[in-house]
Amino acid sequence: MKIKPLGDKIIVQRLEAEEKTASGIFLPEGAKEKPQQAKVIRVGTGKTLDNGTVTDFQVKEGDTIILGKWGGTEIKVDGQDYIVMGEDEVLAIVE
Amino acid sequence: MKIKPLGDKIIVQRLEAEEKTASGIFLPEGAKEKPQQAKVIRVGTGKTLDNGTVTDFQVKEGDTIILGKWGGTEIKVDGQDYIVMGEDEVLAIVE
Amino acid sequence: MKIKPLGDKIIVQRLEAEEKTASGIFLPEGAKEKPQQAKVIRVGTGKTLDNGTVTDFQVKEGDTIILGKWGGTEIKVDGQDYIVMGEDEVLAIVE
Amino acid sequence: MKIKPLGDKIIVQRLEAEEKTASGIFLPEGAKEKPQQAKVIRVGTGKTLDNGTVTDFQVKEGDTIILGKWGGTEIKVDGQDYIVMGEDEVLAIVE
Amino acid sequence: MKIKPLGDKIIVQRLEAEEKTASGIFLPEGAKEKPQQAKVIRVGTGKTLDNGTVTDFQVKEGDTIILGKWGGTEIKVDGQDYIVMGEDEVLAIVE
Amino acid sequence: MKIKPLGDKIIVQRLEAEEKTASGIFLPEGAKEKPQQAKVIRVGTGKTLDNGTVTDFQVKEGDTIILGKWGGTEIKVDGQDYIVMGEDEVLAIVE
Amino acid sequence: MKIKPLGDKIIVQRLEAEEKTASGIFLPEGAKEKPQQAKVIRVGTGKTLDNGTVTDFQVKEGDTIILGKWGGTEIKVDGQDYIVMGEDEVLAIVE
Repeated sequence: MKIKPLGDKIIVQRLEAEEKTASGIFLPEGAKEKPQQAKVIRVGTGKTLDNGTVTDFQVKEGDTIILGKWGGTEIKVDGQDYIVMGEDEVLAIVE
Repeated sequence: MKIKPLGDKIIVQRLEAEEKTASGIFLPEGAKEKPQQAKVIRVGTGKTLDNGTVTDFQVKEGDTIILGKWGGTEIKVDGQDYIVMGEDEVLAIVE
Repeated sequence: MKIKPLGDKIIVQRLEAEEKTASGIFLPEGAKEKPQQAKVIRVGTGKTLDNGTVTDFQVKEGDTIILGKWGGTEIKVDGQDYIVMGEDEVLAIVE
Repeated sequence: MKIKPLGDKIIVQRLEAEEKTASGIFLPEGAKEKPQQAKVIRVGTGKTLDNGTVTDFQVKEGDTIILGKWGGTEIKVDGQDYIVMGEDEVLAIVE
Repeated sequence: MKIKPLGDKIIVQRLEAEEKTASGIFLPEGAKEKPQQAKVIRVGTGKTLDNGTVTDFQVKEGDTIILGKWGGTEIKVDGQDYIVMGEDEVLAIVE
Repeated sequence: MKIKPLGDKIIVQRLEAEEKTASGIFLPEGAKEKPQQAKVIRVGTGKTLDNGTVTDFQVKEGDTIILGKWGGTEIKVDGQDYIVMGEDEVLAIVE
Repeated sequence: MKIKPLGDKIIVQRLEAEEKTASGIFLPEGAKEKPQQAKVIRVGTGKTLDNGTVTDFQVKEGDTIILGKWGGTEIKVDGQDYIVMGEDEVLAIVE
């Protein structure tokens, strides 16, 4: 992928929402919940601390993460939707 | 459980609200108070302090905690509802 | 009591509002002022400072305190109402 | 007085508003300005700094002070009105 | 003057607004702009820094200063209007 | 270019929005999305840290960057539109 | 000029808006954009850092600067309009 986030930011891409409910009912388009899982596409250059050290990321490219409903900034590159967000906005990693 | 919170976050699951009042009256669905107790499902990787040490958690998996009515972020994984929250949003532990 | 607050939080219970005015008039229910006195039920584990020391509490269990009208978070455990609040939200101790 | 403020808080009591204007006209009740002077009733235990020292107060019990129109929290004890406020909310001392 | 501000606060008194425009037209009362100049009446006790030193004031009693339209808190003492403000709310000194 | 940003600010110029959709349909003017890519025109003098060192920029003049929809301040110089923004408002670099 | 800003503040004066468009059309009064360029009239006494050193200004008297549309506080002295602002509100210097 040809875009690189700065500092402690990461770029993720939302995973498709489930199209049926837990009980197996297919959902019409408007009834799907906004998906909260995303795939980490690229991590930034790391956050430089005051003492000069650069922090590592706890997530890595390829990880599936849980993000909050309003976390990050949505961008579009080459017709694709991405989210740029700080790693501290990641709620959890799906193992 | 297959999701892991980052840093000082924990994942909890709300306990069912009581379905009758103290005086024994069964409540219709809309009259139940929003439950304030939750079970700790998983704790994060710990908070890294400025001096490099990683803090321990005061709560542990399996604890029943009291959380505020608006604390944390609700997520849904595999059709189950969880709350991801910072440990400092835990009001008290039920012993 | 079976709930324990974390860190520098304390758990208090509001004292009943006075049911008559200073001049001895009994008040109808809606005219009573919201009580501002509360009894300290339990104190937390103490606040850990940056240098590792844990602070003591200035209030202790059994103290009667004055709290602001909007201080703390109300919780209900076993049908009883409590307030969880930081010690710094205590306005004064009634001696 | 039987209530003691914590930390850097002080307890004051508003002085009565002047009941006539500078030109000697008596004012009806609703026209009186809200009084801005108050008497210091009691000072707290002092503010503990990060290095462990406890600060002194610049005001002392008995001082007449000027407070802003919205400073502090009003409380009622034994039918009397008091204001609990931080010393940094004191605008000036009347000498 | 008999009131003394605390810490880094100063007490000033607004100067009268100009009663005619630059081109010499006298203004009716409602058309006068709110004056932005004030005279420094008294300075506080100085701001105590974390290391214990007390800062000096850049303004001194008698200085004419420029203040913003909403800076400071208006108080009335002995029928006179004053403004108590932090020195950092002073925009400029008129030399 | 004849304007120079101060400190850690950079000056960028928005790139034209794509005038057709991914599927090749030309868009009428009002349907174009607000472009999120911009070209770095000039970087500032660097941010001076507390210890006196001046930080380098991660972006350089000529880079294409992704900016948020509301990042930065729009200015007009010689009839041209620019955006002045902090480097920390840059979401990602297009490589 | 007879007014001096304090600390890291500067005093600037807006430059007249261009009265015709890039294509040479004269604009009626209401159509002119609010000017964003200003001339630095005077700089303050410098910002005193925690370690006692006083910072220099990056702008100097006579510089033409770009300011944001809502930066600074407008004041009027001797019938002239000025803006008092922090140097960090300067977006760029016109060279």
